[in-house]
Amino acid sequence: MAPQYAPSLRSRLAPLLLFLQTGNVKVDGETFSNFYAEFQDVNVIVILGFGFLCTFLVRYGFSGSGFNLLVAVMATQWAIILNGIESWYYRGKIRVNLRSLVVAEMCTASVLISMGTMLGKTNPVHLIIIALLEVSGFIVNEWVLQTLLKVRPLNSIMLLHIFGAFFGLMLTWILYRKGSEQRFEKEKFDSKTGLFSMLGSVFLWMFWPTFNSVLVDDRTPGRKLGAVCSTYLALAVSAVTAAAISLLSHPKGKLNLIHMQSCILAGGVAVGVSMSAVHQPWEAMTIGFSAAIISTIGFQYLKIHMLLAFQCHDTCATLSTHGLPGLLGWLSHLLLQIRDSDDHTMAIRFAVFHICTLLITITISLSTGFVTGLLLKWNFWRPPQSKKCFDDQAFWEVCNQ
Amino acid sequence: MAPQYAPSLRSRLAPLLLFLQTGNVKVDGETFSNFYAEFQDVNVIVILGFGFLCTFLVRYGFSGSGFNLLVAVMATQWAIILNGIESWYYRGKIRVNLRSLVVAEMCTASVLISMGTMLGKTNPVHLIIIALLEVSGFIVNEWVLQTLLKVRPLNSIMLLHIFGAFFGLMLTWILYRKGSEQRFEKEKFDSKTGLFSMLGSVFLWMFWPTFNSVLVDDRTPGRKLGAVCSTYLALAVSAVTAAAISLLSHPKGKLNLIHMQSCILAGGVAVGVSMSAVHQPWEAMTIGFSAAIISTIGFQYLKIHMLLAFQCHDTCATLSTHGLPGLLGWLSHLLLQIRDSDDHTMAIRFAVFHICTLLITITISLSTGFVTGLLLKWNFWRPPQSKKCFDDQAFWEVCNQ
Amino acid sequence: MAPQYAPSLRSRLAPLLLFLQTGNVKVDGETFSNFYAEFQDVNVIVILGFGFLCTFLVRYGFSGSGFNLLVAVMATQWAIILNGIESWYYRGKIRVNLRSLVVAEMCTASVLISMGTMLGKTNPVHLIIIALLEVSGFIVNEWVLQTLLKVRPLNSIMLLHIFGAFFGLMLTWILYRKGSEQRFEKEKFDSKTGLFSMLGSVFLWMFWPTFNSVLVDDRTPGRKLGAVCSTYLALAVSAVTAAAISLLSHPKGKLNLIHMQSCILAGGVAVGVSMSAVHQPWEAMTIGFSAAIISTIGFQYLKIHMLLAFQCHDTCATLSTHGLPGLLGWLSHLLLQIRDSDDHTMAIRFAVFHICTLLITITISLSTGFVTGLLLKWNFWRPPQSKKCFDDQAFWEVCNQ
Repeated sequence: MAPQYAPSLRSRLAPLLLFLQTGNVKVDGETFSNFYAEFQDVNVIVILGFGFLCTFLVRYGFSGSGFNLLVAVMATQWAIILNGIESWYYRGKIRVNLRSLVVAEMCTASVLISMGTMLGKTNPVHLIIIALLEVSGFIVNEWVLQTLLKVRPLNSIMLLHIFGAFFGLMLTWILYRKGSEQRFEKEKFDSKTGLFSMLGSVFLWMFWPTFNSVLVDDRTPGRKLGAVCSTYLALAVSAVTAAAISLLSHPKGKLNLIHMQSCILAGGVAVGVSMSAVHQPWEAMTIGFSAAIISTIGFQYLKIHMLLAFQCHDTCATLSTHGLPGLLGWLSHLLLQIRDSDDHTMAIRFAVFHICTLLITITISLSTGFVTGLLLKWNFWRPPQSKKCFDDQAFWEVCNQ
Repeated sequence: MAPQYAPSLRSRLAPLLLFLQTGNVKVDGETFSNFYAEFQDVNVIVILGFGFLCTFLVRYGFSGSGFNLLVAVMATQWAIILNGIESWYYRGKIRVNLRSLVVAEMCTASVLISMGTMLGKTNPVHLIIIALLEVSGFIVNEWVLQTLLKVRPLNSIMLLHIFGAFFGLMLTWILYRKGSEQRFEKEKFDSKTGLFSMLGSVFLWMFWPTFNSVLVDDRTPGRKLGAVCSTYLALAVSAVTAAAISLLSHPKGKLNLIHMQSCILAGGVAVGVSMSAVHQPWEAMTIGFSAAIISTIGFQYLKIHMLLAFQCHDTCATLSTHGLPGLLGWLSHLLLQIRDSDDHTMAIRFAVFHICTLLITITISLSTGFVTGLLLKWNFWRPPQSKKCFDDQAFWEVCNQ
Repeated sequence: MAPQYAPSLRSRLAPLLLFLQTGNVKVDGETFSNFYAEFQDVNVIVILGFGFLCTFLVRYGFSGSGFNLLVAVMATQWAIILNGIESWYYRGKIRVNLRSLVVAEMCTASVLISMGTMLGKTNPVHLIIIALLEVSGFIVNEWVLQTLLKVRPLNSIMLLHIFGAFFGLMLTWILYRKGSEQRFEKEKFDSKTGLFSMLGSVFLWMFWPTFNSVLVDDRTPGRKLGAVCSTYLALAVSAVTAAAISLLSHPKGKLNLIHMQSCILAGGVAVGVSMSAVHQPWEAMTIGFSAAIISTIGFQYLKIHMLLAFQCHDTCATLSTHGLPGLLGWLSHLLLQIRDSDDHTMAIRFAVFHICTLLITITISLSTGFVTGLLLKWNFWRPPQSKKCFDDQAFWEVCNQ
């Protein structure tokens, strides 16, 4: 009975949580109304969007949405604490306001992305360990980037897609189960679970502009609105492109709903990563177009090769839906910045700096993933048996249908 | 054919509704943009959240969401009229603006909470009678509290959880059906209806901070934001706690989705009731923690005892999910206020005043519930036969599957 | 394999889309926060609301929501280009800002309304052709009304319901399939798809006030708020009325969920069309009341007569849900304006002008529909065979259940 360890973890976590005795929640009224709606949109993305996106497995809907809620909440609290350590050290207090909640939810998003690779093959204790370690790794990465390389906070946070995808990949590689080459019996969707997942995906698609723009500085007028419009256009182009490529690449010319759901978001991911260099609508649309192509083709061909050649069983094809578009966004950022810079020295300096940013992120991501994977390999956590994978019955009371 | 009475009711209601010939919908533009988003959030809670929360019964999804919409709309209109009586008396007009709509929807929420106790065992005419009488009772209660005890409007409205739970409980006690001790055959959920209900519950969870903060006075800067953050933290803590306790208290260490859905909200309910005394994050988190424990244990053990010992068949365990956390919130309010008060006389005076508030609310709630229950016992309303309970087929055209 | 033509269309569309190289996305920060939330609400209506409203067919959920997303995105991009032609002609640029996105999404809504008439009987290529031609027709209609008759932009856009319904009707008439008199085998809903569709419908219902008010000029204080309150009251009245009439008109006194879903929106549609003449709540409520009656009775009796007598197989009863309430709204606008005008000459002049507006809209709508229908009759587009109608399997990879 694996999940019975969860409470024991809790007992160590509860004091930590209650330790958040932070006061001075003071923000003026005006800021409230402007920011609260955006905070809610991010909330919708993290809780509802990612949660229902994971309900597509025919017998794993309860776990998909329920564990997502649990992990999201836990990871957010943990990220609030870790992000507040500095402030706690100097002032003895951790400030909680809408902005710190949003930043914490962005860190959480990277955990939820990694969870996509492990969907159906873990128990909740695993997920909580992943959440705690990955959030820590992500915040360390942010701290390193911001302190050593002086990367702007917005840019370092937006690397969450790359961080999450590589972390998850390393995890599936270490926790590879023999026999995964044949599809698991329950690893499929039906006409109803596909719709639940569509619901999550549509919410992600609709509120993605907020996700990309929420942390953009509002003091330069128009920056935030530009971010919203760029993201919207990239998403629009990538929705159409994803459907077209998905159709073209299918042997019988049919669409696959899960495939389409994952790939319509690629444009949003790529534009998010390159946000601070995208100024023209056509740039956003070109990025959206390329991201959708890469993501769709990756989903179709790369997923199965990752499984057969590298023994990475990536349930939700996270590499194609977040990793590759994230890398594309990183590349676009580099290219656009080089084009915009006036002299050669600056351009080369930026390129070196930008490549370092990526390398550090991938290194920290893979190494945290490696450590987490080794820890989870320990049988003490009682991983679900292979035949009980992708099944709610291991963790939930389910009525027979 | 029970539902055929609904139209006759309508014919008496239509003139009343059209009688709302109120003019002067004048609010300045600025107020609009600030308040409209919050109004929509409350709307989402009342229409979507409560509606889909009630879809978990395997054959009662249409009724759960459809009747909820109907009752919510009817109760809101009725609450607008009743809340406007005073203004109508003095000025011959009822003013309708976003604020009055929000207040009316809060009154409606208390009806929807009561309906949870009766889910599956009524026809729509019953529900409409309940809605009209309970809204009237709730508004009388508010009027009594505000006039006699000078309770602040926000505090008196937030008692809606306690009012709704006790009203519903009295109702199920009077309308007890013989044979309810054995579970009804259709009183269960399956893997799809569980997800629909999860959807409603997630929407409630996400937008609950708005529900608690919408009526908080915005003139003191930071009050509203404080309410939002407190509620968010309480909800976060209670989500994790509810899952942990639910796991611990289950004989086989499994989670129950409906159980978890109900209990993750407990923290939000408790903090809502004690809102005006909660100033520190750790207070909110402690309240959320205790509320989740009480609510989860209540759901697990109290529901069945209420049925066997007191013959209250409370379908959605409203007592545990709204009643107990509401009482806890009331108690926390009392304790926090006593701690904050400087001299003894004031503290004792406040305690007496606060206890009177609770007693009056429970008294009015139980007595309105009693009257409503007696009225509904009348066979004229043709209650559904026990074997047709929990089944959409009595009221809806359903295709055979 | 009909859908394989989609990409070829794409290849012609992609350059067009990328041609949107528009700069100067400049709007000041304040406008951002005020308008962004409303933009998101419209987004929710167009993508989620209409999308999930179309999932009720038991085997057509993937197509209902998936194609809706595709068509919505394509039509919005096309509308942005067409709406920007004038600006492109004079300044060489198309400006993209939140307002232009909202206007484009309103044009898209008229396409989604028409698609309701053809639901289940087309392939995606058909849908994309419909989208491109209808958006063009709608924008021509707007241009004609605004240039020749000096109709205000808001009023001309709100005719989208009438335009969409008549366009769709003409389409179904031309593309009539023999044998449609008997219900198609798969043209039905079940207890789960009904709930998905309920979800879409509830989202439409909740956010309809934004849809009606989003383009209302905010400079006159209170106008926008008045629009929101009027729409809300009309929707509330029409929800109750629709349920009552639906019950009364059913032979066994049962409710039909799809029926109810369509008709609760009638009030919102009618008030939307007559928005600029509705000043008093009772006017909005009366309009909502009448719209719900007309819509419900139309759904019950007119749909089948349109099929048998006029060979229009209107899957979602678009005539009753958008056409008739739209016409009612048009009529209310006329009557209210006449009542409000001081002298006879003005009233008659307004009536003539108003009738011309309607006639032009219907003419352009029917003629574009006629042309589109003839184009789609061409076998080159390979319409799905009748026995494959209403089935996802023609276009989507579906696991057997």
